[in-house]
Amino acid sequence: MYHHVKKLMYTVNIGEPDVRFGNMLLEQFGGANGELAAAMQYTIQGWNCVDDLARRDLLLDIGTEELSHLEVVGALIRMHLKPLKTDREAAEADPLVTIAGGGGVALFDSKGNAWTANYLKITGELDVDLRSNIAAESRAKIVYERLIDHTDDPGTIDTLQFLMTREITHMKSFTAALESLEKNPFSVGMLKPTPGIVDEYFNASTGKGSEGDQDMHGPWQTSFGLHPVDSELTGGQGLSVGDVNGKIEGEDRGKQDSGQKAPTSPKAAASHKLETVSTKKR
Amino acid sequence: MYHHVKKLMYTVNIGEPDVRFGNMLLEQFGGANGELAAAMQYTIQGWNCVDDLARRDLLLDIGTEELSHLEVVGALIRMHLKPLKTDREAAEADPLVTIAGGGGVALFDSKGNAWTANYLKITGELDVDLRSNIAAESRAKIVYERLIDHTDDPGTIDTLQFLMTREITHMKSFTAALESLEKNPFSVGMLKPTPGIVDEYFNASTGKGSEGDQDMHGPWQTSFGLHPVDSELTGGQGLSVGDVNGKIEGEDRGKQDSGQKAPTSPKAAASHKLETVSTKKR
Amino acid sequence: MYHHVKKLMYTVNIGEPDVRFGNMLLEQFGGANGELAAAMQYTIQGWNCVDDLARRDLLLDIGTEELSHLEVVGALIRMHLKPLKTDREAAEADPLVTIAGGGGVALFDSKGNAWTANYLKITGELDVDLRSNIAAESRAKIVYERLIDHTDDPGTIDTLQFLMTREITHMKSFTAALESLEKNPFSVGMLKPTPGIVDEYFNASTGKGSEGDQDMHGPWQTSFGLHPVDSELTGGQGLSVGDVNGKIEGEDRGKQDSGQKAPTSPKAAASHKLETVSTKKR
Amino acid sequence: MYHHVKKLMYTVNIGEPDVRFGNMLLEQFGGANGELAAAMQYTIQGWNCVDDLARRDLLLDIGTEELSHLEVVGALIRMHLKPLKTDREAAEADPLVTIAGGGGVALFDSKGNAWTANYLKITGELDVDLRSNIAAESRAKIVYERLIDHTDDPGTIDTLQFLMTREITHMKSFTAALESLEKNPFSVGMLKPTPGIVDEYFNASTGKGSEGDQDMHGPWQTSFGLHPVDSELTGGQGLSVGDVNGKIEGEDRGKQDSGQKAPTSPKAAASHKLETVSTKKR
Amino acid sequence: MYHHVKKLMYTVNIGEPDVRFGNMLLEQFGGANGELAAAMQYTIQGWNCVDDLARRDLLLDIGTEELSHLEVVGALIRMHLKPLKTDREAAEADPLVTIAGGGGVALFDSKGNAWTANYLKITGELDVDLRSNIAAESRAKIVYERLIDHTDDPGTIDTLQFLMTREITHMKSFTAALESLEKNPFSVGMLKPTPGIVDEYFNASTGKGSEGDQDMHGPWQTSFGLHPVDSELTGGQGLSVGDVNGKIEGEDRGKQDSGQKAPTSPKAAASHKLETVSTKKR
Amino acid sequence: MYHHVKKLMYTVNIGEPDVRFGNMLLEQFGGANGELAAAMQYTIQGWNCVDDLARRDLLLDIGTEELSHLEVVGALIRMHLKPLKTDREAAEADPLVTIAGGGGVALFDSKGNAWTANYLKITGELDVDLRSNIAAESRAKIVYERLIDHTDDPGTIDTLQFLMTREITHMKSFTAALESLEKNPFSVGMLKPTPGIVDEYFNASTGKGSEGDQDMHGPWQTSFGLHPVDSELTGGQGLSVGDVNGKIEGEDRGKQDSGQKAPTSPKAAASHKLETVSTKKR
Repeated sequence: MYHHVKKLMYTVNIGEPDVRFGNMLLEQFGGANGELAAAMQYTIQGWNCVDDLARRDLLLDIGTEELSHLEVVGALIRMHLKPLKTDREAAEADPLVTIAGGGGVALFDSKGNAWTANYLKITGELDVDLRSNIAAESRAKIVYERLIDHTDDPGTIDTLQFLMTREITHMKSFTAALESLEKNPFSVGMLKPTPGIVDEYFNASTGKGSEGDQDMHGPWQTSFGLHPVDSELTGGQGLSVGDVNGKIEGEDRGKQDSGQKAPTSPKAAASHKLETVSTKKR
Repeated sequence: MYHHVKKLMYTVNIGEPDVRFGNMLLEQFGGANGELAAAMQYTIQGWNCVDDLARRDLLLDIGTEELSHLEVVGALIRMHLKPLKTDREAAEADPLVTIAGGGGVALFDSKGNAWTANYLKITGELDVDLRSNIAAESRAKIVYERLIDHTDDPGTIDTLQFLMTREITHMKSFTAALESLEKNPFSVGMLKPTPGIVDEYFNASTGKGSEGDQDMHGPWQTSFGLHPVDSELTGGQGLSVGDVNGKIEGEDRGKQDSGQKAPTSPKAAASHKLETVSTKKR
Repeated sequence: MYHHVKKLMYTVNIGEPDVRFGNMLLEQFGGANGELAAAMQYTIQGWNCVDDLARRDLLLDIGTEELSHLEVVGALIRMHLKPLKTDREAAEADPLVTIAGGGGVALFDSKGNAWTANYLKITGELDVDLRSNIAAESRAKIVYERLIDHTDDPGTIDTLQFLMTREITHMKSFTAALESLEKNPFSVGMLKPTPGIVDEYFNASTGKGSEGDQDMHGPWQTSFGLHPVDSELTGGQGLSVGDVNGKIEGEDRGKQDSGQKAPTSPKAAASHKLETVSTKKR
Repeated sequence: MYHHVKKLMYTVNIGEPDVRFGNMLLEQFGGANGELAAAMQYTIQGWNCVDDLARRDLLLDIGTEELSHLEVVGALIRMHLKPLKTDREAAEADPLVTIAGGGGVALFDSKGNAWTANYLKITGELDVDLRSNIAAESRAKIVYERLIDHTDDPGTIDTLQFLMTREITHMKSFTAALESLEKNPFSVGMLKPTPGIVDEYFNASTGKGSEGDQDMHGPWQTSFGLHPVDSELTGGQGLSVGDVNGKIEGEDRGKQDSGQKAPTSPKAAASHKLETVSTKKR
Repeated sequence: MYHHVKKLMYTVNIGEPDVRFGNMLLEQFGGANGELAAAMQYTIQGWNCVDDLARRDLLLDIGTEELSHLEVVGALIRMHLKPLKTDREAAEADPLVTIAGGGGVALFDSKGNAWTANYLKITGELDVDLRSNIAAESRAKIVYERLIDHTDDPGTIDTLQFLMTREITHMKSFTAALESLEKNPFSVGMLKPTPGIVDEYFNASTGKGSEGDQDMHGPWQTSFGLHPVDSELTGGQGLSVGDVNGKIEGEDRGKQDSGQKAPTSPKAAASHKLETVSTKKR
Repeated sequence: MYHHVKKLMYTVNIGEPDVRFGNMLLEQFGGANGELAAAMQYTIQGWNCVDDLARRDLLLDIGTEELSHLEVVGALIRMHLKPLKTDREAAEADPLVTIAGGGGVALFDSKGNAWTANYLKITGELDVDLRSNIAAESRAKIVYERLIDHTDDPGTIDTLQFLMTREITHMKSFTAALESLEKNPFSVGMLKPTPGIVDEYFNASTGKGSEGDQDMHGPWQTSFGLHPVDSELTGGQGLSVGDVNGKIEGEDRGKQDSGQKAPTSPKAAASHKLETVSTKKR
């Protein structure tokens, strides 16, 4: 159940409205990496997370905070878009918002794309969702940074700095939640990859380009057991496709298997013990 | 420049076609986490990566391999959908593919949604893109695993096992590329988060639910300097919003700053030294 | 600012899961007239409603309640979709949710369409938004009714009956809010329609069809000053297009003009008096 | 069956083309509340309305007129966009229309979003559809008003004033059609809401905001039997969820039940009597 | 201006409703190659075709006929979907249409995708648009054929045969209109392709596949001046990129240049002579 | 299987970046008629073309070349968009690309619409697909022409001239492939249109408009056996709907029936003879 408190999580004050900047800010309201996307991604992951009520709590804590951020971004945008209502030249900064939306904020990005759930990454596999969330927070962080770089208004900068800072907070929490599962970083789900071929780095792009591009070497070809393999087209051996021989069970799913389950969890019947999440500091 | 070799990267053989399973397989052809999404995400990131030609090579190697995977998945789907062309009952498994597409494969997911670039996560910030790619590979891995769990056909399983294995390979490479940047894991871009408030874990979801939900504790509240803060609504102190005071430069961008630049890189003028990526084994 | 209480607004209990019905229920989660659409439409209208803080409160009360409904619908769907995770035949009821979503709820409708902000109707003109909301509530009501008609499970019916009932509650509130503006029902905005031509009902569909269709008469041709006009093509006089002669100001905007304004309202400077909304019973 | 008459319903004449305004006008051609949306919504509602041939005639009369409006808006836009074809600076006002469309009109809105049937509200329940249409006409009216406010060209204003006026005409007709059903305004479909809880106005947004926001009172809390209820979170009693006890039939569907049916109507077998719609003036 | 005649262009009669087939038929109502797509594509091309009023008449004749076809397809679908309203198992054939749409027809395809203007191909270049239309008619023809192949109901087959036949009629007309422009078939617009490189057929796919695929030869490599060129990657010479040297004007635009212009045509000032289209039989 | 060669198919050099033009160029990267659309359309048609391996080779040759073009267009756009990264005024040319994409190229068109597979025309019927491709190439040609007309930069013009020229090359090849099937131009699929009514050109648009529009005559009414028919509404006889009487088999499918089949072709069992495509010059 949700409750709305009329106070904004961060009080917004701006100087002179800047309609072109207000338009840019829509990226964080109705855009692909914006606050609604974050709120919906984490909240729905949380609702689905019936196998691990502790990490469900985490997902709902952060999902709810992102809704409060959406409200803050909305207030900031409205202040910057205020001139749209009365000024023809300002209106040209966002004709959709002006003519259809009356100058208010709406679930569009800076180019008027309607928000879509296609932006969300929700798989129902906890460690995968946490990885998606770490990536999502890093995207939101860089977007706020770019917005800060495009304005000089101190009140606007402070609001964006607040929001940007919180993304790093969330990145820390999602990273800690992932690490506390104590899984192998390359273990996903319950099936194992096929040995041998899993370690072949395939060199599918070769030659020399006009900008200095060429075949290069780096740890991404040799770490974690990897070694490079060239294509048969360029005289190499190609991938060891002969290694594949049916599915291989036995991947480690980590601490989530012993998490506290909701009664509607598919695993609740089998495992009723309470989760005791280690709370070691870092 | 691209070249197509008529041989499939993995030779597909199936037993009896299974049209409902063929429909499910579309998730990995035209779906949100499918092979076209992977190919386009990495390839376009690579084209944009003018500041670090070594990791651009990585992005193009893997992006190109994903195109070859798309072709393999397409061949597998076509075999399973073959009965659509002639059998009314089979046709009901996917009327869109049957009636509009003549029973062939197309860029739709299992529910007929047309593939959209909204699935892609491309920011032009290298470490952020690498995080998005690690998450994308883990999503693709779990999707292949679920597909394997929904079929008994050995030839189909082998094909999917091949594809699933390669996702782990790519996860390793992207992780190695990110780590080789030698950045603080919570450093993104060039602006720092505000100290103090960055370490406050906000408890926005409280109370007890009917499925055992309650406020729980875990390392996500106390790791990496974090500590929990309650909302004013539930008697807490709320976030330290007063900490915010303008933007703070000085974040560390890691090894990419010394990467080999293309002449069209904005940073090429300032930095012409060749990248020497460390190739230490792990 | 938002807060999440872990208790559901309505405790959901179901008997036997029914995956095909769970799929239908997605209409009210991620569908065009579902709970997220309601929550977002009213909430964003509320955030934009800086000219009338009293009706803003109404919009936020109901917008927030709809978020709580979204959570209830989500819980109901999860229970019905539970067999998707383990049963191949069940999985065919929704391959997208099974394969990509791991059997959890997501922002799709029953045919897998991703939720889009194109579903929302937000204009920033208060009386128009209230009309859109009355219509939206009536749509949500009929959709819940149809869902109730497609299940026999008592626990499911009770949950849907709860949700359906609340739509009527909201229809009452939005209707009262519109009527309390004390506006002419055909007065919208500040420009008047052109007299004469505004009262001409144009008969653009004529003849006899094979299902009994013919030109019919009804109050919609003769109420509120209307009278029918035939097309020149069928021997009539056509519309009085000559009546049009420039714009005509002077439409009545009702009580909202004296509503309490936020400082960021464009009209706040001109009107600082507190709104005294009449609270007469009906 | 449709016929096209080459004469425009309103002859368009403009002075100097204004490409930025032509771009704004696209809102009423390919936009969410534009003429195609209106034409399709009413026409398809009419095709589906086999239970009430009299109101089907109404829906087709207005649906067809909206197609004629689409043509008028298209002519107006083409005149304003004419410079796109030859002038680079003009072209920047709408690169999509210029480069892909050759400067002609197309089914996009002012920000280039392709028209989508997601804009339509069609439920197949007559009184619900009429409410959606009243709301749709009020939205179209305010959009035309805003367009008129953004141009000084007399010929353009007259064309828009014509179109705006007709929206009010249609609002009158749809309102009369709804009222002539002689239904309770809060009766939708055939199932009744649960007594008791249907009258509880839930106060889900509380506290004080920085713009003067606070808990306010208005007729929307006390009209039509309503009374306010506070959340348990803020010390109230919460909703009377215990009132719910199964579905309750018996809602009044009004005059449509005695309307003239098409032979393909599900109700045609049971009711063959001719509708005698009252034509009382207002 | 449009007029609606209540009589259907083809009277629809069916035997037993077939809901799964009704669902398939949606492809031609709200699908990518359906009747609305045809109606909108030709009509809007026609409205834009101010440079050639004779072919504008053609575009509007056919565009209007397609609207009448949309109505016929709609009637056919409604008859097949009638059981959706009352039968739970039938409802599973299209839950979206049942629950959200009340069993009526709507602008969706068979998989529930909302119709989008992205389906349309409108360029404002007459010969290009005519080519797009010839292709569109051939697509609609094959879709009707597949639908006919999926039903045994004689009344349904006759309706589809009528509609399929008309697509061939339109293909003839569009082909005749294109040929009557008397243009070189490879002349588009006003700029010429670069000689030399325009005749190089590039062999970008080579090798042998497991299904018999190999490099093959055909007239597409040697007609109209073409000759094959191999890639440098496979030992060939590559394309003669050195041939390119600026733009080359002088392409022949055919009879449209002497077509009768509307006064709003950009070319109207320069060319006022009436078009005399040759009407030679074929 | 694909291989990437780091050398661009055409080396791009530009003078001064022009961000507004870079934005326009996105039409050919992520736009409806752009290079990804071409690459995907032909490639997927090719993968599905198991009945005619020779023309499959053609489709894959050209599909692969279009991928190389996508890379060239991407390089051109990046050079023009380079100032977005550092210049606020430049950023306003494309806020989405700047803020969300970091100034890099992405799969959007000039108005920020995400690329969608709805742009593709893939039917699995070879001659239909070839017609769609001829039309697609002509559209791409005119789009490149318009882009050339909007820039003065010689390096940019050369790149675009290269790409435009190749579209004509492909138009030639697709036309030759269609003609080499040696089919009647109005024969599609296996069902014949109904004689009589197939030759009736229906005059659905009549009257006189204010721009000189009137009923006109042209070869499109009288070629290929056609003759004009007027609507009953305007005193004509209407279409000969009585001609329709069931389906009529016997359409000629041309040389594809004797094409070399893949083993997965539905027709492979029946036809194993090698295709001998005539290679007559033109």
